[in-house]
Amino acid sequence: MRHTTILLAHGAGGKLTHDLVSELFLPTLTNDILRTLDDSAVIPTEHCKLAVTTDSYVVKPLFFPGGDIGRLALCGTVNDLAMAGAVPLGICASFILEEGFSTEALDQIVTSLQAAAHEAGVLVVAGDTKVVERGAAEGLFITTSGVGTIPEGVDMGAAHARAGDAVIISGPIGDHEVAILLARGEFSLKGTVRSDCAPLNGLVQKMLDVCHDIHVLRDPTRGGLATVLWEIAQASGVGIIVEEERITLRQEVRGVCDLLGFDPLYLANEGKLVAVVPKDKAEGILEAMREESLGREAAIIGEVVSENPGRVLLKTTIGGHRLLEPLSGEQFPRIC
Amino acid sequence: MRHTTILLAHGAGGKLTHDLVSELFLPTLTNDILRTLDDSAVIPTEHCKLAVTTDSYVVKPLFFPGGDIGRLALCGTVNDLAMAGAVPLGICASFILEEGFSTEALDQIVTSLQAAAHEAGVLVVAGDTKVVERGAAEGLFITTSGVGTIPEGVDMGAAHARAGDAVIISGPIGDHEVAILLARGEFSLKGTVRSDCAPLNGLVQKMLDVCHDIHVLRDPTRGGLATVLWEIAQASGVGIIVEEERITLRQEVRGVCDLLGFDPLYLANEGKLVAVVPKDKAEGILEAMREESLGREAAIIGEVVSENPGRVLLKTTIGGHRLLEPLSGEQFPRIC
Repeated sequence: MRHTTILLAHGAGGKLTHDLVSELFLPTLTNDILRTLDDSAVIPTEHCKLAVTTDSYVVKPLFFPGGDIGRLALCGTVNDLAMAGAVPLGICASFILEEGFSTEALDQIVTSLQAAAHEAGVLVVAGDTKVVERGAAEGLFITTSGVGTIPEGVDMGAAHARAGDAVIISGPIGDHEVAILLARGEFSLKGTVRSDCAPLNGLVQKMLDVCHDIHVLRDPTRGGLATVLWEIAQASGVGIIVEEERITLRQEVRGVCDLLGFDPLYLANEGKLVAVVPKDKAEGILEAMREESLGREAAIIGEVVSENPGRVLLKTTIGGHRLLEPLSGEQFPRIC
Repeated sequence: MRHTTILLAHGAGGKLTHDLVSELFLPTLTNDILRTLDDSAVIPTEHCKLAVTTDSYVVKPLFFPGGDIGRLALCGTVNDLAMAGAVPLGICASFILEEGFSTEALDQIVTSLQAAAHEAGVLVVAGDTKVVERGAAEGLFITTSGVGTIPEGVDMGAAHARAGDAVIISGPIGDHEVAILLARGEFSLKGTVRSDCAPLNGLVQKMLDVCHDIHVLRDPTRGGLATVLWEIAQASGVGIIVEEERITLRQEVRGVCDLLGFDPLYLANEGKLVAVVPKDKAEGILEAMREESLGREAAIIGEVVSENPGRVLLKTTIGGHRLLEPLSGEQFPRIC
């Protein structure tokens, strides 16, 4: 490890997170299942393929426009299962609480988590609660994990993109991270941007109904769209070209980005997905997505090519080209 | 909820943890699977029964004689799966790190977690890392979750104890909690007690080889042996009578308990199990347990009766009787 202590950037989902995983975790824990580093791990069993996944949530503030840590924790794990094409079987939720935390706030958060579970059609089947002394944690942290079954014929993974595939995004980007930043009030900006935090398993089901042969699904959370595309290009050994003008932003998100100098391509989303699909199936899948409220603004934003393996090229609106690197540095901590 | 804020005792595994779960979590998240409150949730699928479980680890200090938070987090989740009789399919590990935490210490912890996984014969298949600012967490917290398959014919649960059953414990109690307390140095006591932290899935497999019809398995972690027995008596609607003289303690653990006034029946263990089994199978199971290093000192400590449903009676060494209530109050925070 290049660093002797953990930096905030190690948790930001970009280059340093990647280094921490590949230099510290993977060499020790290494096995073929973990090594794929997909949103869910895929475990083959005698009768079926299981998807399992886990994520900790440390978002700050705990409540924000469009959601709260409970909704976020439930949706995040449901979405990681959905990104493997899995049908969720059950969700676990583990709470680390700070002594002195309000039981009323906890109740609101658990109620919101359950409402999101209902929305996603999943059950919270197991849980745990630990309490630490005042000052040893901040409010509460939630870790969710989930297990699901992957239907026969479904086989997705970041390494499965092929030259000629189309790249789809399910809607405008950046809402979640901008909503969190505005909710923190750090920039003396007020706004009405709401987090896009939502369970995507229903949308994925509609896509699979059209075509089981989806190559890659990823939700562009920490690190944003650019980092996810870079990870796919790296894992598949392909190039990806996306067109800036096809990637949409809500007007207010664009305004915040312009004002504060954020690059929306690196902002976290919690209710969007990137799909890499065979070109001849792209229109059919897109049509099915647009019939769903969570995919209403879905668009084809680019294509997979054999040139420039491992690289992502953005065709800018002014006609130039820009190489998209993974997120480097910390951007903002605790957005999920 | 009787309390408007979270107390340390809400995380101690006793009466207040029980209240928090039954008054706040269960009414909102309620479903038939969660409601059993066993160490693992059991999910029936088309082809098999899956066990899933999750636990957060906030132990302090991170390193202690006999283990560290990595080993503890791995063993704890493997053990919860084992308590459902499940064969682990995969473990997930999610890390919440404090900015500034030593990467060398992290590496040691991950290495220890992996060594325990190897010992248990399980794979860590998925993970996550989040980083929070200095002061927003203490060092690191780990949440592990696991999924396993329950073999056909195995059907355990806290509610399955029947009058006439024998109650077995796999060895002497109290090692883990005493090791943690000594490691904290709070009592100006030094000692050589080591945590019993170990994966029990191998031992459980040997027990199941003798007899699939084990009624209840529980690992007496937070809340200790007394609380686990109380939970079984409550869930099964039976009485339980245990004999104090059959419950063993290491001499040094007994010394610490005598000196500091701890009741060993309420001390946490991390490598022990309680089994409730049909009386006519008890000797055979005991014999198989004693052939394993983790069950060498296993003993039958009592029986299940139809009288006094929901109550646990301890026959004391001096010939009296004592009613064992669940742990009340906080005992010690952050022992796991």
